[in-house]
Amino acid sequence: MKKEIRIIGIDDMPFSFKDKNTDIVGVVMRGGTYLEGVLKSEITVDGMDSTDKIIKMLEKTKHRKQIKLIMIDGIALGGFNVVDCEKIFNEIELPIITITRNKPHMNKIKEALKKHFEDWKERWKIINNGTTEEIELRYKIYIKYFGISRHEAIESIKLATIRGAIPEPIRIAHLIATGIKKGESRGRC
Amino acid sequence: MKKEIRIIGIDDMPFSFKDKNTDIVGVVMRGGTYLEGVLKSEITVDGMDSTDKIIKMLEKTKHRKQIKLIMIDGIALGGFNVVDCEKIFNEIELPIITITRNKPHMNKIKEALKKHFEDWKERWKIINNGTTEEIELRYKIYIKYFGISRHEAIESIKLATIRGAIPEPIRIAHLIATGIKKGESRGRC
Repeated sequence: MKKEIRIIGIDDMPFSFKDKNTDIVGVVMRGGTYLEGVLKSEITVDGMDSTDKIIKMLEKTKHRKQIKLIMIDGIALGGFNVVDCEKIFNEIELPIITITRNKPHMNKIKEALKKHFEDWKERWKIINNGTTEEIELRYKIYIKYFGISRHEAIESIKLATIRGAIPEPIRIAHLIATGIKKGESRGRC
Repeated sequence: MKKEIRIIGIDDMPFSFKDKNTDIVGVVMRGGTYLEGVLKSEITVDGMDSTDKIIKMLEKTKHRKQIKLIMIDGIALGGFNVVDCEKIFNEIELPIITITRNKPHMNKIKEALKKHFEDWKERWKIINNGTTEEIELRYKIYIKYFGISRHEAIESIKLATIRGAIPEPIRIAHLIATGIKKGESRGRC
């Protein structure tokens, strides 16, 4: 793992379920900790476009060639707009790690999908790509990783974490996303 | 100068002169380099409300008690919405440093004010609060400072600068402001 590795962290802006769309924020960091760029794109709340919007955001940024790793806050953005990490990895050949502090309750997710979406089977399949692993660093976190070994995934998380549990690219994407939408940033990722 | 000092950096979002309003972004950093919070407020393009909006943003943030220093990208935001640093210092008792990489052309500013604003004298007076000083650290920059000694102003800039000429709180406020408005961050402060 190169110390100067460029990582992009992605999180979504807060939204209400009245909102048709919401924004996602991408934060490009060198060595996981020095901010080099901020990106923004729009996705549909509860839509199915987060995967393609992330691919497009990565394809068109000037940081494209520098970025070596994607970190995403969880497995869905903008509600149940599930992120197809395998598709992203296949299309743009960048490894991806999803990270959350809270254990995903898969049964509850499945019930919610069944209740609200005709295409719940497709979303459920995407959500179940990869395997969620509990890892304990300074804090317990839950990760999935694609196109990267378990060892390298953990090393990159350690490299990019300064304080607390969440690596800087995701932590800062979260602060920007909530701060810009609400006027003041808040909360844990 | 305490190493863990909290500094807020403020910059404005890009705008066109058709826009009535634009946003300003505040970035709270610990030790000048660890991002703790992101704030947003709205000001009028070419208006006279930037001073009061900055005061209000600082009064209501949860970081209020931690913040010990304000850094602003230049002497006006949102066009010629001049920032009255003396008023801010008097009202909330926080020292302020304004920082730019380019030498302000005072004659041109005066001509533009005269041409476009009936209240140009008031704006011109506010702009001339304090004295612009050229300082050469790793790069040449132009600063004004209020409520803080020259020595401490320079020490705080050094403490908060990692690479390049611009301290992190302003550099990152600029990346967020341009990235959120344009989809991708750009340019120098």
